[in-house]
Amino acid sequence: MDRFMHAALEEARHSLEEGGIPIGSVLVHRGVIIGRGHNRRVQLGSAVLHGEMDALENAGRHPAEVYRESILVTTLSPCAMCSGAILLYGIPKVLIGENRTFQGEEALLLERGVDVEVLQDPECIELMEGFIAASPELWHEDIGE
Amino acid sequence: MDRFMHAALEEARHSLEEGGIPIGSVLVHRGVIIGRGHNRRVQLGSAVLHGEMDALENAGRHPAEVYRESILVTTLSPCAMCSGAILLYGIPKVLIGENRTFQGEEALLLERGVDVEVLQDPECIELMEGFIAASPELWHEDIGE
Repeated sequence: MDRFMHAALEEARHSLEEGGIPIGSVLVHRGVIIGRGHNRRVQLGSAVLHGEMDALENAGRHPAEVYRESILVTTLSPCAMCSGAILLYGIPKVLIGENRTFQGEEALLLERGVDVEVLQDPECIELMEGFIAASPELWHEDIGE
Repeated sequence: MDRFMHAALEEARHSLEEGGIPIGSVLVHRGVIIGRGHNRRVQLGSAVLHGEMDALENAGRHPAEVYRESILVTTLSPCAMCSGAILLYGIPKVLIGENRTFQGEEALLLERGVDVEVLQDPECIELMEGFIAASPELWHEDIGE
């Protein structure tokens, strides 16, 4: 597995261990992870800290140049909010673990020129399938459904 | 002035007093403010807590029905991230103080069926014009430019 996706998956598993939603993400700048994160809905009662947002938040403040040389790696296809954050900061590439269990705003990202790569990683799929089957209400809350 | 926009503007002014970026927002559910917030880039070193995101975060966790009966009120046209959050949660209406100093993703919101109303409020415009003139670098960082 891609080593950055491995780190994002570690974050996702860590979230599940905490009783949270198993989605993880890392922000990678020139080959170095500068932010790691996972969904914090359960852990912090957060409505905005999806895995991708948490990785961006934990990366801290950066000038635009940093984001424009970065890749966002996430275990699951990014929702409208996280895709919007990618567009805000002009992150040029998103590496996605899977989009079988949830299809985010990949079409919008592509339309705006973001390079989108989907791995359809079996471990990412299995993790989300297990979570959705076990906690459908929590999952629907997280995606506004 | 609309009383909810007045509350959002209070938040924006409070942020400026804290040394932060003067953008404020409130989330209104059936006529009651359930979340207030302002930009926290300076105050918390946050990359994701724009005014709108902070209002959503401070509102806490809610099921989808709550967002679908809510209005997001913001002093400034919402950026791609905040617009994405509006789309994620299916918030049907956004009341915007002004879009003279920054044009966010209103076209995307309209395309997705969100009701967008822009007040072009002179106090909102004056507040942002003063801030941008005084702190252009901080402003550009906040919008990823």
